[in-house]
Amino acid sequence: MQKFINAPDTAVPEYLAGLAAAHPDVVRFQPDDRIVTRAAPAGRGKVGLISGGGSGCEPLHAGYVGRGMLDAACPGEIFTSPVPAQVMAAAAAADHGSGVLFVIKNFGGEVMNFGLAAEILTRRGMRIEKVLVDDDASFPPGLESRRRGLGATVLVEKIAGAAAERGQPLDQVAAVARRVVARSRTFGVALSSCTPPRLGRPTFELPGGSYEIGVGLGGDRGQDRGELPPAAAVADVLLDRLVGELQVTEGTRVITMLSGLGSTPQLELFGLYGLVDERLRARGALVERSLVGNFLTSLDSLGALLTIAVVDDELLDLWDDPVHTASLRWGA
Amino acid sequence: MQKFINAPDTAVPEYLAGLAAAHPDVVRFQPDDRIVTRAAPAGRGKVGLISGGGSGCEPLHAGYVGRGMLDAACPGEIFTSPVPAQVMAAAAAADHGSGVLFVIKNFGGEVMNFGLAAEILTRRGMRIEKVLVDDDASFPPGLESRRRGLGATVLVEKIAGAAAERGQPLDQVAAVARRVVARSRTFGVALSSCTPPRLGRPTFELPGGSYEIGVGLGGDRGQDRGELPPAAAVADVLLDRLVGELQVTEGTRVITMLSGLGSTPQLELFGLYGLVDERLRARGALVERSLVGNFLTSLDSLGALLTIAVVDDELLDLWDDPVHTASLRWGA
Repeated sequence: MQKFINAPDTAVPEYLAGLAAAHPDVVRFQPDDRIVTRAAPAGRGKVGLISGGGSGCEPLHAGYVGRGMLDAACPGEIFTSPVPAQVMAAAAAADHGSGVLFVIKNFGGEVMNFGLAAEILTRRGMRIEKVLVDDDASFPPGLESRRRGLGATVLVEKIAGAAAERGQPLDQVAAVARRVVARSRTFGVALSSCTPPRLGRPTFELPGGSYEIGVGLGGDRGQDRGELPPAAAVADVLLDRLVGELQVTEGTRVITMLSGLGSTPQLELFGLYGLVDERLRARGALVERSLVGNFLTSLDSLGALLTIAVVDDELLDLWDDPVHTASLRWGA
Repeated sequence: MQKFINAPDTAVPEYLAGLAAAHPDVVRFQPDDRIVTRAAPAGRGKVGLISGGGSGCEPLHAGYVGRGMLDAACPGEIFTSPVPAQVMAAAAAADHGSGVLFVIKNFGGEVMNFGLAAEILTRRGMRIEKVLVDDDASFPPGLESRRRGLGATVLVEKIAGAAAERGQPLDQVAAVARRVVARSRTFGVALSSCTPPRLGRPTFELPGGSYEIGVGLGGDRGQDRGELPPAAAVADVLLDRLVGELQVTEGTRVITMLSGLGSTPQLELFGLYGLVDERLRARGALVERSLVGNFLTSLDSLGALLTIAVVDDELLDLWDDPVHTASLRWGA
């Protein structure tokens, strides 16, 4: 197995220790609770934000802890939800007296464990709001409940994080987070599966010259498989689904994010983005901001997730607020 | 071939167009000259900085064009030096009346073509200084001339870029660039080769369970090959070479950069960095700043390059100056 690890069992804590070592001014790793917190916790009164999920999807979520985004993150084992105790530890670290927003991706284990933690903490008197991220456009209308939380997670954490940093109260922070979810969709493709360290082999085999359409995170197969076309046709596949769902037309203002799945070269990712961007503009959309890079991944999977969020002045303004995390940083 | 491209021949210009589309506030792609320039050129009087080299090493160099780093970049074909006409076009775009610094990596074609361009432009009256980056620690003392330009390139572009932004004259900007080169070394390992689009197959075969030691960019084999050990031993291999060459001892202040080679998952890269960082601190080194991510790559190669630069107050201060490029951004 061609991996830079000591052993499958230590890969996650060693990643977290390395993240904290590389960014000591931004995050701390608390190994006993298996959570990541801000190096400089926010002051009293700020609404807290937490998120978490299966490891292997880096920089989700620890890479987004810091000023302007999350207060704490609870990473599970690889492709496995964090346990409720981790969620509760993260919430405790994030609570500055004004309540905590749980950003939960729509995966069974996460919904259950964040839900359990919220129930217990609410009984103990903590104010909690939950936002469920289910931006996955792989499942058609009618199957909304199966839509996974994908790229919108990053956008929600950035925009709601900015609202919290501005001192907005919990209900407003939760409302803006839900607004981002409602206006965002993600659609992804993969040209390879990935190799989880404990499994030691690819999660599935993909014949050369073919690709998976409608993938999420975690090395699962997509909803469909096809013959891999030139990048321009891949751009069409990604875009058509999102543009339809979000009703992007002349003058629609959007933020775009194209994330590699872990092993996608920048040469290809930016090349693909250029084709997406060109097509969006041809439809008259106004691309206000864009991110291209590894923003949520699936270990060493070769693939790309395209996220589009329809924005207005308020969302864009929150987007532009300063942020200082390991993986997203500007104005600070 | 599992790639997001339209055709091998269009991959580079489509990457550059995509980079400009994703960062319209930072860079422009000028397809006729095949160069990338700042979206907002610097004002009169600032010393210009340019660099360039074979494509496939993204974000080198176009990802480092922007305020605080390069004024222009000239990307060649994949793993092929830019031609002199490109270098001259980049220099012309970067010249604001106070001369231009050429940041040249020690690869035969680059040295020759940047040298030719410098000769012609100097004859035409442009003031030019050249800095040769040869931080590769793969070749032992005595074979210095074979040392390739690797991670120090990013550090030189950042630090000399800041000096230029402060209004320092050409000789001072060149002097600080040379100081960074002299105090930096890079050593790298790879767990796979890469697949250039035109070649359509890996540049070499690496048996599972083994790794290349002392690699550069471009998919060449390393200076040595060994059985892949646990990450802790890889950290030792990387570090021992650099610490010896740079004489890192108790109290030595350093900037570290660990760059993935293109397909290295963040989980592994940060995990490896944590082991490196721990060892550096155990030797008493003061790790002042660190970067972990894809800062110079080799298409889809799985591997890591560790760069260490010994710094002082002046270099650290220049490092911390604001920068706004596609791939490095802070304070702006």
